[in-house]
Amino acid sequence: MRPHNFNAGPSVLPLPVLEEVQRSLLDTNGSGHCIMEWSHRSPEYDAVRFDAEQRLRRLLGLPSGDPWKVLFLQGGASLQFAMIPMNLATRDRQGHYLVTGVWAKKALEEAERLGAGRAAYHGKTSGFTRIPEAHEWRADASAAYLHVTTNNTIYGTQWPALPDSASIPLVADMSSDILSRSLPHDRCALLYAGAQKNLGPAGLTVVVLRQDLLARKVEGLPAILDYRAHVEADGILNTHPTFAVYLMGRVLKWMEDEGGLSVIAKRNQEKAAMLYAEIDRTGFYRGTADPASRSIMNVCFRLASEDLEKRFLEHAEALRLVGLKGHRSAGGIRASLYNALPSASVEALVAFMRDFERGCG
Amino acid sequence: MRPHNFNAGPSVLPLPVLEEVQRSLLDTNGSGHCIMEWSHRSPEYDAVRFDAEQRLRRLLGLPSGDPWKVLFLQGGASLQFAMIPMNLATRDRQGHYLVTGVWAKKALEEAERLGAGRAAYHGKTSGFTRIPEAHEWRADASAAYLHVTTNNTIYGTQWPALPDSASIPLVADMSSDILSRSLPHDRCALLYAGAQKNLGPAGLTVVVLRQDLLARKVEGLPAILDYRAHVEADGILNTHPTFAVYLMGRVLKWMEDEGGLSVIAKRNQEKAAMLYAEIDRTGFYRGTADPASRSIMNVCFRLASEDLEKRFLEHAEALRLVGLKGHRSAGGIRASLYNALPSASVEALVAFMRDFERGCG
Repeated sequence: MRPHNFNAGPSVLPLPVLEEVQRSLLDTNGSGHCIMEWSHRSPEYDAVRFDAEQRLRRLLGLPSGDPWKVLFLQGGASLQFAMIPMNLATRDRQGHYLVTGVWAKKALEEAERLGAGRAAYHGKTSGFTRIPEAHEWRADASAAYLHVTTNNTIYGTQWPALPDSASIPLVADMSSDILSRSLPHDRCALLYAGAQKNLGPAGLTVVVLRQDLLARKVEGLPAILDYRAHVEADGILNTHPTFAVYLMGRVLKWMEDEGGLSVIAKRNQEKAAMLYAEIDRTGFYRGTADPASRSIMNVCFRLASEDLEKRFLEHAEALRLVGLKGHRSAGGIRASLYNALPSASVEALVAFMRDFERGCG
Repeated sequence: MRPHNFNAGPSVLPLPVLEEVQRSLLDTNGSGHCIMEWSHRSPEYDAVRFDAEQRLRRLLGLPSGDPWKVLFLQGGASLQFAMIPMNLATRDRQGHYLVTGVWAKKALEEAERLGAGRAAYHGKTSGFTRIPEAHEWRADASAAYLHVTTNNTIYGTQWPALPDSASIPLVADMSSDILSRSLPHDRCALLYAGAQKNLGPAGLTVVVLRQDLLARKVEGLPAILDYRAHVEADGILNTHPTFAVYLMGRVLKWMEDEGGLSVIAKRNQEKAAMLYAEIDRTGFYRGTADPASRSIMNVCFRLASEDLEKRFLEHAEALRLVGLKGHRSAGGIRASLYNALPSASVEALVAFMRDFERGCG
């Protein structure tokens, strides 16, 4: 039986996509063999990557061609934590970071190692339970960029809207909520996401950037870490993770076939609302994020004791509700509700939560 | 019909492996869902990655545990071209490079961008058609490392044995011939390979290194580019390309089931010998690599004219012999004969070559 998969990522993929991939694995797109066996320089693969790029642009609402460039890279968001300051910041003109969680903190730390970043806000003191109001953070107009992590997977908070960075280029790590809701993506100078939550399998990172960001050539930067080199090579400087790009294209097609971003976003709202309503119903469960900052992707909550949480997780696991354990740095329970998670899985979780509460009453 | 796949990489995968992956795609290892949907921090995935690592160690003949560490990274050999000098060299103590082809040259160029590399040999003047003798290259005993590209995919040459680097740590890019023949791998201080030729799909890079290489902490190096950080995180600093690691494990199991490296190596020798014999038979085809430097992985040859080569490629394609076009920088014909290419495909190519020659006679 297929489990209800609440993993924080890698996580559940759309079943119809997996079924399609399975059917065509030995004969992708009528080629007679598997996409993994194709050359990354073949016309067949070009068709796959351009199709994925066009779907991504449509879903993000970013027009084709300039000024936006789309790169399919490797190394996860973690490599972007390094590439962003290496390409865009200097010791004299640093990147400013809105540190609202663990991944935002890691992004800042990589910039700090390079001497090229500082915090514009740091939520450590408030335990990362909320997203700051505009008056609580501050970036200098001279900052190289303002970095935001739009959704915080570990603490279950999410920026309700993109922060207003005024004239500072906005750089957004959207790894855990890309294409989960409608946003004015064109306000970002650079947005990026590891694919393994809403887009596809692990091993692919999507970077969308405005070309004018790259006006300055950075001396002493290896080509593989240089956005300019990737752009100049038409997005295929070295071998792509071809299968992951293919699979992402299938996931994006699934999203479009389902009705596009507005339909997916509505579904995500409903799934999250259903779960938060159950959390708030009696006080048996306690949401950890500030209500105004609650994420629709990662829902974090606690029970009265760690012992009770342990029993909750064991019972859930036995019912094939998997991936509910909170991140080791936060504890508690976390249910990740990415795009591909069916509403039925949230219904199953809510039903289990009621039963569990009743059993403890 | 499944083509005869002579792609230079990504390339052919073992059919039994693809069939197994297809069968288990919706229910990997009895989990009820797809490996791509598992957490990279789950015990299930740990079992997959440790199994792949143990198989790799056995096939390379490297004992478990210290001093060897195995890393499953992303970014291809191209990212290693940057990480190696970033981690191991300085302006004062550079890496020395044996430049025997295009990829070796790219590796050197990344080191040069960092001011941390120079050529110990450069085959440009001889058109990269041969591997130098020991007296033709020279590295200082004070070099940070000696970098060798054991097989040159584009020009079809291969080091007949690992160069003797004496006391200098040997760093080997084995992307295009890893596990194709028996070698004293323990003579390498670091060896690496993109997976997409002999190991699995694109999107995974294997790095095996001796831990004593990392004695020096490099200041100002982002964690994601720091081998020490990867080793300290037990090889899983950030999300692995989990499906690619899984698939590599299946390919390595296939190799072991076939009889291990000695059987695969013998088969590779025979495949290459069959093709070179046909090339040398009449003079209609002309091998481009110096006979003593010929690669058993990538066989490069020319016909009398570019026009004839074009016809050769068209006829081959029509018979489903694919991927035979030489690299754009070298021209001509190139047949890549990686581990997973069946002998029957080489036989089909040889038969076609005879027919084509006869038709032109």
